[in-house]
Amino acid sequence: MKMVKLIIEYDGTNFYGWQRQSDKRSIQGSIEKVLTKIYKETIQIDGAGRTDAGVHAYGQVATYKEIHAIPLENIKRAVNNFLDSDIRIVALEYVDDSFHARYSAIGKTYVYKIHNTVERSVFLANKSDHYPYMINDNLVLDAISYLIGEHNFGSFMASGSSAQNPIRTIHDITFSRSGDEIEITFTGNGFLYKMVRILTGYLLEVGQGHIDAHLTPELLENPTRLYTSKIAPACGLYLKEVYYE
Amino acid sequence: MKMVKLIIEYDGTNFYGWQRQSDKRSIQGSIEKVLTKIYKETIQIDGAGRTDAGVHAYGQVATYKEIHAIPLENIKRAVNNFLDSDIRIVALEYVDDSFHARYSAIGKTYVYKIHNTVERSVFLANKSDHYPYMINDNLVLDAISYLIGEHNFGSFMASGSSAQNPIRTIHDITFSRSGDEIEITFTGNGFLYKMVRILTGYLLEVGQGHIDAHLTPELLENPTRLYTSKIAPACGLYLKEVYYE
Repeated sequence: MKMVKLIIEYDGTNFYGWQRQSDKRSIQGSIEKVLTKIYKETIQIDGAGRTDAGVHAYGQVATYKEIHAIPLENIKRAVNNFLDSDIRIVALEYVDDSFHARYSAIGKTYVYKIHNTVERSVFLANKSDHYPYMINDNLVLDAISYLIGEHNFGSFMASGSSAQNPIRTIHDITFSRSGDEIEITFTGNGFLYKMVRILTGYLLEVGQGHIDAHLTPELLENPTRLYTSKIAPACGLYLKEVYYE
Repeated sequence: MKMVKLIIEYDGTNFYGWQRQSDKRSIQGSIEKVLTKIYKETIQIDGAGRTDAGVHAYGQVATYKEIHAIPLENIKRAVNNFLDSDIRIVALEYVDDSFHARYSAIGKTYVYKIHNTVERSVFLANKSDHYPYMINDNLVLDAISYLIGEHNFGSFMASGSSAQNPIRTIHDITFSRSGDEIEITFTGNGFLYKMVRILTGYLLEVGQGHIDAHLTPELLENPTRLYTSKIAPACGLYLKEVYYE
């Protein structure tokens, strides 16, 4: 019964999120169904984090316990053969029994993609947030400079998650623009519920000049959702990588 | 009753092709439904060419007769507001009554996109053909050099279209590779049914070394489907532009 670690890529558009649901298509459920078919015994997987409906991943991580040994190269081929075209196992490897996809994680990187132009593109639909308003990149960079570090991110946490400790460390946020395409990359030791989408919504408001970037330290000092009610849509968000020791 | 010319962009994945069908989602049908709603009278559109199910377009062209005058800028905004996210009107303009989207066309450009790597990508699914075999680009370029010019393309025409005159002029074919991404761009005075997909299927067979590039002149001389049975899938094909005088 060895522990297997999976790296998973998915286009979240046509899934009701990560979590297994009896009557709806989920990422967890889709993979479990295929693994159960291949091993001919019920397999359950544990993920590093639950992504919401519409959120994508390049590098979601999950584990399962092997019921009996089948070469992982064969498992990979078989699983990818059975899975639909919007989900794929990138890699499989054996890990120590003590490994836990969620609790062993020491950090994550998310990317938020924005298509910043007046006209939407049919080819970026559901893969990027279409944001038609003019953004002043320097204002966004100003706000970003305040967010990096260990802070109370209570201002950037969705309601319904108040039980959590809101202290997190953001190691880095990079903002890159190539023509109309913006990517904001967030790396931290962990993120609160919807935190990346709320941070992105806030940064875009700052970039439009609706909120003063210099208000940011105050929001980290005294948590309030007064300036962070905009939540960037799920379709722009990608879980890029999960880090372990 | 002025004639209006439309330029249309669509992701063909979830359409049963261009042509109006009573019970299935088509590009023509979707646009006609929205225009009819806006003008409050039945509007029919004529396209430059019927794309098959799954084929995409950056610049499909169509026309309709305006029943009563509404500023085209307003039409554009309203149509794009009502259309789903996988279809969009790029531009509208008045044209002469004698203009015909199909018969006035003097040429077209198609792009065929290939993801040439062992592992598929979930984000390119339905937008590019995943082709996992090694391609020798120089062999493809050899075959391309024979195809340019005026020829009998009967070897590259889908069956069921034998009534057509198979003589066409290909002005240019460019092959470009950026890492794993290949784009083959075909510009000509017109293309036979499925000709671009059959040409692409043939070029990939040549690139794999399955067919000798130097056989190409013979296929243009004496039409046969013996070497052109591979039809590249619809999902890689994009109608890029239609040219008029």
